[in-house]
Amino acid sequence: MISELDLIRRIKTLAAPADAALVKGIGDDCAVLATPGATALTLITTDTLVEGVHFDLSWHPPELLGRKAVAVNASDVAAMGGSPRFALLSLAAPANLKTETLDRFMQGFMAALAECRITLIGGDTVRSDGGLLLSITVLGEVATAQVLYRSTARPGDQIWVSGFLGQAAAGLACCRQQHSALQQAYPELVAAHLNPVPEMALGRALAKSGLVTAMIDMSDGLASDLAHVCEESGVGAVVAADRLPISASTRQAAGTLGLDPLRLAVAGGEDYRLLFTARPEACEKIQALAGHAAHGQLFRVGEMVAGHGVLLSTDGQNSNIDFQGYDHFGGGQVS
Amino acid sequence: MISELDLIRRIKTLAAPADAALVKGIGDDCAVLATPGATALTLITTDTLVEGVHFDLSWHPPELLGRKAVAVNASDVAAMGGSPRFALLSLAAPANLKTETLDRFMQGFMAALAECRITLIGGDTVRSDGGLLLSITVLGEVATAQVLYRSTARPGDQIWVSGFLGQAAAGLACCRQQHSALQQAYPELVAAHLNPVPEMALGRALAKSGLVTAMIDMSDGLASDLAHVCEESGVGAVVAADRLPISASTRQAAGTLGLDPLRLAVAGGEDYRLLFTARPEACEKIQALAGHAAHGQLFRVGEMVAGHGVLLSTDGQNSNIDFQGYDHFGGGQVS
Repeated sequence: MISELDLIRRIKTLAAPADAALVKGIGDDCAVLATPGATALTLITTDTLVEGVHFDLSWHPPELLGRKAVAVNASDVAAMGGSPRFALLSLAAPANLKTETLDRFMQGFMAALAECRITLIGGDTVRSDGGLLLSITVLGEVATAQVLYRSTARPGDQIWVSGFLGQAAAGLACCRQQHSALQQAYPELVAAHLNPVPEMALGRALAKSGLVTAMIDMSDGLASDLAHVCEESGVGAVVAADRLPISASTRQAAGTLGLDPLRLAVAGGEDYRLLFTARPEACEKIQALAGHAAHGQLFRVGEMVAGHGVLLSTDGQNSNIDFQGYDHFGGGQVS
Repeated sequence: MISELDLIRRIKTLAAPADAALVKGIGDDCAVLATPGATALTLITTDTLVEGVHFDLSWHPPELLGRKAVAVNASDVAAMGGSPRFALLSLAAPANLKTETLDRFMQGFMAALAECRITLIGGDTVRSDGGLLLSITVLGEVATAQVLYRSTARPGDQIWVSGFLGQAAAGLACCRQQHSALQQAYPELVAAHLNPVPEMALGRALAKSGLVTAMIDMSDGLASDLAHVCEESGVGAVVAADRLPISASTRQAAGTLGLDPLRLAVAGGEDYRLLFTARPEACEKIQALAGHAAHGQLFRVGEMVAGHGVLLSTDGQNSNIDFQGYDHFGGGQVS
């Protein structure tokens, strides 16, 4: 079976960027379109959530699933520095799905749209022979001068992340145990998995600041998402293991579960924090923007270097962690 | 289980049309957005195709499935009078899907995009626990003065369709027999199911003509799609059974299969012909545009009336056929 990464690379070679209105096609968090005469660019992103792969209704309350379906798309718009405006929802539902489940999902979905000031403008509802499947497309906008890409990081840039890493993966591991005491002991980890908060305000603040050289949202985990920045920018990255922000609760839960907290932080997906790069001289000004982050903190974790690939530096030893972790297409497991 | 129609109605009540840029939200073939300063409107549509519900890979060649995935979305843009420009593809694939199947699908998909002058700008690839699932979003454009809606039909308008009805449903029935002689006997019916041709040229020609009062594409069948026009326009419709264009091959295949050809024409989905309304005095000018139709013919099948609902007139007897036929969400069977 082909991997998600290989498939995207293959599709990229097929997709001809023929249209003058197309500023950025495949290969970033959103596609970017320009309308003649307009001062803002249009952003478009789509994300699909599959029952049994991305969520499990036996522990995922439907209203939180509805919120998450919005969050993962809003996060892609935030990663471009933009604001989301419109959404389309394609819902493939099995015949035996309870109306109550659907109602609760829609409640959470619509509430999250309202909070993000997104208007639902269309969609499709079909029957699924498998489980519930949600495919959401979000359109947003960003001032032409403020749009941020993955492809513009430069050697010497510092690498920042907007919050703790590995929280969602640790929360997912707690949920998988089906052990209510564990879930009650780590509510913030479970919430990171069930109900991630997109970095709407931070994305806008960073875009307006003019300080950021490149940005991406962390959906697949640090190793994969930073590897995308490296690949698209044509540079490498070195991340310091001892600088990775790992919360005390993630360390504790990992201990209880027999997992490596560093591995959760490096390869665990779905934290939906922003990863961005900036020149070293912008360091203090960046730090001053931490109040816009969902959890109020920004962490400097490494720097971009000439070359290619992502290196993790642990006690002076470098190891390559390029694209380690989550591959939804190949398996979807946090290994 | 809730029906597709009920769900769409429920979602419509939840979706607030708060944004000034939103010209038309849920309830037409596409959502319609206006950009300040731009002379064209943006059209957006999304359609999901589910293995086992909308297609069966045991008889659907993957390259034709790729073409159909484009066609069903391009058809929605054509129904607004517009031209498609950009596409996003979300692909949920089971782990055991063959790379060859995926390659053949992508080949057909990309070829159809190129023929329709659509650029692929993004998407998502995920693993499916069920079958293959394709969710495609297409963006298009239409000059502000030319956009056509479902909601603007008036009593006295004549109802037109752009080709034979029931062909795709008859073709599907042939494929379901798994009987190659039957499929070889009716290649145009099988093609109507496997590889529908969207009415791109006709949609544009009708929009430019200024003659059309309302338009929709027939994805769910005459009874359902005309009922949408009635509901959105606040009027009724009377269709003459003896005017419905049913091809000789559909009648023959229906005879062999023990199906009612009239029922196929009324309730069979997926023909993707355009249904539109126009004033009676425009009749000759409309007829002169038949050369733009995919199959070169236009048929006048009834008229809009005051009131509500769709009536089928057979030998002077009227019967209500409102929303008869295809309900993907409830079952997806042509009954």
